[in-house]
Amino acid sequence: MSKTDSGNFFEDFQLHQVLCHPTPRTATAGDAALYLALTGSRFLLNSSRESARAQGLPEAPLDDLLVFHLVFGKTVPQVSLNAVANLGYAECRFLDPVYPGDTLTAESRVIGLKQTSAGDSGIVYVHTRGLNQQGALVLEFKRWVLVRKRDPSAPAPEPLVPETQEAVPPEELVVPAGLHGREWNAELSGSPYLWDDYTVGERIDHSDGMTLEEAEHQLATRLYQNTAKVHFDQLLAEEGRFGKRLVYGGHIISLARALSFNGIGNAIRVAAINGGRHVAPTFAGDTLFAWSEVLAKQPLPDRDDLGALRLRTRVLKNCRADGFPDRGPDGKPDPAVVLDLDYTVLMPRRTSSWDVVTTAGTGS
Amino acid sequence: MSKTDSGNFFEDFQLHQVLCHPTPRTATAGDAALYLALTGSRFLLNSSRESARAQGLPEAPLDDLLVFHLVFGKTVPQVSLNAVANLGYAECRFLDPVYPGDTLTAESRVIGLKQTSAGDSGIVYVHTRGLNQQGALVLEFKRWVLVRKRDPSAPAPEPLVPETQEAVPPEELVVPAGLHGREWNAELSGSPYLWDDYTVGERIDHSDGMTLEEAEHQLATRLYQNTAKVHFDQLLAEEGRFGKRLVYGGHIISLARALSFNGIGNAIRVAAINGGRHVAPTFAGDTLFAWSEVLAKQPLPDRDDLGALRLRTRVLKNCRADGFPDRGPDGKPDPAVVLDLDYTVLMPRRTSSWDVVTTAGTGS
Amino acid sequence: MSKTDSGNFFEDFQLHQVLCHPTPRTATAGDAALYLALTGSRFLLNSSRESARAQGLPEAPLDDLLVFHLVFGKTVPQVSLNAVANLGYAECRFLDPVYPGDTLTAESRVIGLKQTSAGDSGIVYVHTRGLNQQGALVLEFKRWVLVRKRDPSAPAPEPLVPETQEAVPPEELVVPAGLHGREWNAELSGSPYLWDDYTVGERIDHSDGMTLEEAEHQLATRLYQNTAKVHFDQLLAEEGRFGKRLVYGGHIISLARALSFNGIGNAIRVAAINGGRHVAPTFAGDTLFAWSEVLAKQPLPDRDDLGALRLRTRVLKNCRADGFPDRGPDGKPDPAVVLDLDYTVLMPRRTSSWDVVTTAGTGS
Repeated sequence: MSKTDSGNFFEDFQLHQVLCHPTPRTATAGDAALYLALTGSRFLLNSSRESARAQGLPEAPLDDLLVFHLVFGKTVPQVSLNAVANLGYAECRFLDPVYPGDTLTAESRVIGLKQTSAGDSGIVYVHTRGLNQQGALVLEFKRWVLVRKRDPSAPAPEPLVPETQEAVPPEELVVPAGLHGREWNAELSGSPYLWDDYTVGERIDHSDGMTLEEAEHQLATRLYQNTAKVHFDQLLAEEGRFGKRLVYGGHIISLARALSFNGIGNAIRVAAINGGRHVAPTFAGDTLFAWSEVLAKQPLPDRDDLGALRLRTRVLKNCRADGFPDRGPDGKPDPAVVLDLDYTVLMPRRTSSWDVVTTAGTGS
Repeated sequence: MSKTDSGNFFEDFQLHQVLCHPTPRTATAGDAALYLALTGSRFLLNSSRESARAQGLPEAPLDDLLVFHLVFGKTVPQVSLNAVANLGYAECRFLDPVYPGDTLTAESRVIGLKQTSAGDSGIVYVHTRGLNQQGALVLEFKRWVLVRKRDPSAPAPEPLVPETQEAVPPEELVVPAGLHGREWNAELSGSPYLWDDYTVGERIDHSDGMTLEEAEHQLATRLYQNTAKVHFDQLLAEEGRFGKRLVYGGHIISLARALSFNGIGNAIRVAAINGGRHVAPTFAGDTLFAWSEVLAKQPLPDRDDLGALRLRTRVLKNCRADGFPDRGPDGKPDPAVVLDLDYTVLMPRRTSSWDVVTTAGTGS
Repeated sequence: MSKTDSGNFFEDFQLHQVLCHPTPRTATAGDAALYLALTGSRFLLNSSRESARAQGLPEAPLDDLLVFHLVFGKTVPQVSLNAVANLGYAECRFLDPVYPGDTLTAESRVIGLKQTSAGDSGIVYVHTRGLNQQGALVLEFKRWVLVRKRDPSAPAPEPLVPETQEAVPPEELVVPAGLHGREWNAELSGSPYLWDDYTVGERIDHSDGMTLEEAEHQLATRLYQNTAKVHFDQLLAEEGRFGKRLVYGGHIISLARALSFNGIGNAIRVAAINGGRHVAPTFAGDTLFAWSEVLAKQPLPDRDDLGALRLRTRVLKNCRADGFPDRGPDGKPDPAVVLDLDYTVLMPRRTSSWDVVTTAGTGS
């Protein structure tokens, strides 16, 4: 019997099954530096320990999406090694911040199964949770993946498609303990626009372009210990329909977030990913641009220092975002769109009732 | 009104204006490791904590040029996003060393303005200072940049061209507190040549070549949170005159320093950059070589353990340095030259009066 | 006289000579993160501080091969800068683990010399030792290198070819102080197979492929401060017989180890490299695959928690490993083979006598 792990196929999943994912990972300042070099991110709290402390955190937290990728990467060997496609995400919430030195583990529960009509594959729905070394939840999300069957004649499971929320409601968004938006230094943060300055329906061209290289997306994806072969194996790619290695979709999400700094620079924390669709594949050599639309402005219960903005960001390849390309006249996504991401960020509010920071600022 | 920052244009600058640059940045061991992987630098004090302590520092400091790039990177969004060209540097002094965990901020004062005769752009002169979280100065420099006007009909400011020193004089060079050159271990450092062994006019071929890749210069430039579009956006590049992304000139300076190890290996600290000119653009695929000339040997006031060497280093592309190419018969720079850098380093001296290191070596 | 170091030539080496190698290097969490991004390694003890502690170590150690490369890299300027070929390794033992913050130094003793019959080069045999800042041995190995002569007419030394062991015997393998295999969590480690589950002669296809990029191998090789010109200088490469930069053979060893996770995931530590041969050169663009054969199962003296597996791993380029390509009908290595590596790993044993971990688990 082969000792090589070929991953789970559709018929290997059982409803309510809990998968404990290898490999725990201690995240460090090394990961943070690499993440910055890979994305060029400039958000204040992740860049500066002093600024993180001024806003009530004990330390500069790892970028929220770095945490997402580390947790997501762990699920790949058991959930999506035989995936035909990543179909969607929902109800992704960012919970306790992760700091250098924290060790992340991940587990997934199978919450839905549905064989396709062709019978050679099926959709697996999982609820994934990321935890730190104290067992505290740092992240959770649901995703669904189209997974091949090993044996097309294996019987179909009872179909169950779980309900998911269209978006994480404001009352379920988590503000990390200690974090506040008071005495926000918009000069240091790099953006003069606070929560109050955005309007629903507003569109923002993030302007900057970023050309992708093979070495970059491979470094990123390996850093997350994501083992999906399509990102690394050119021999395999040449047998596929693109002939090229695919860029990990999560890297595109990270670049969307980094590019969005120019226009949404005070989005100090990703609180939720409501949904995301990788509309088209991305390859090395593509140049990415992004634009965002404000879907909703959500005050947070009992807080006047921070508000939530629900955003929809489109990432485009080889096409500037100044025309806000979205859909063609046929109603289909514009061919330049590679990612359609619906997410919610926290942002300091413009308020007259700011206290002077006293002991709250120590964060512990 | 657009929330996207399109940077300052020439008419946006005012004499004596102070720009407080986002984004503060906590430098870490992760940055140091990446810098080493990007440059291959081998200077002893930056490589080894034990050696740094033996020479009186509390810890291995970040490479001086990494500090330069982190500070420089911060100035780009406000100073040079609309730059046509980086024209020059002067009076760059390296002051307090930066250690992993330090948080860097930067500010620039406009010290000169001069519209060009064509009237569509102007030269902006800034004095930039980098500070750590205690407010101590870690770096300062002057630079001047040719910046486009948004509106060519905007009125020209009163022209003012600041005076700059031709070179930082020895008495203004700073030896970090605690640092000494006594009991220098030339076996561990990798070079047998101390300050005394160099002669003015001496030329050194640094011999090794380094071929640049797109992923490398992009990783470096993003690590410094430098947002200049010309380094990252291939779509934009294809509209320009080169058709290719430009390598950040600072990366060339870092490679010059790393290559110079072979011949100037005991240059334990960059004390000053007296001037620098990016003579020609560099692109991925170019192979760099370097040679240096000793411009001056400068004893330091009240010290017999360390001396300063003023060096002029030429970096060449796709051309070996063994012929010391400099200028053609027409007096113009040899077409292979991409960088002409005038800088000053500190180096241990060969002296018979070395004390045994006692308490001075603890550095704090 | 030139200050540029052109490295030692064959006639520069003397029997019993000890070379103290520059440059000491403090390894950090930054190096560990970069190593992971460069290789995608997933071995438990190097990935997770918590897991390392559960197995008796004070901290997550640096990957064994990262330590190898850091030590090896230091020897290049003095031992192999003028090498025609790296001919072999033997008796490589991994001793004290290296943790972030440790500073590594290296020294080599010349243990053999043999001029070639052509007289223009000779084989240099060295015994290299890597030490940490306390002077404890972290690694030792013997290697032999074919080195050019500067002057072909220089007299040949008395030939001496040292004996080397065919493999490090089990009783000379070192289990780091504190490390144990009890209460091994095979769910977290990512592999259900323990030492007991492997059989001598068993072959394992590691299945995954990894395509190499220039930026990746250059970053890796510079991280190790390895200065061999063939990896970095495209101008030089174009004068050679391949026309391309060579990938550092050690990077191939690291990728072999990372790929081997899929099939040998509980190989928690490399204890020895018995021998290794770089059968063919590797270049950017090549896609690597690997398969391993179990050469021997070795119990360790006085231990029932850990056993040693001696493995032989072949790395292939641009050819899948499922056919276990080894030698052609002519007895020569299959043309796809680039590396033939004989090494020994430690792996937890399946035993009924596991104690509950009490104080032993704290590791100090």
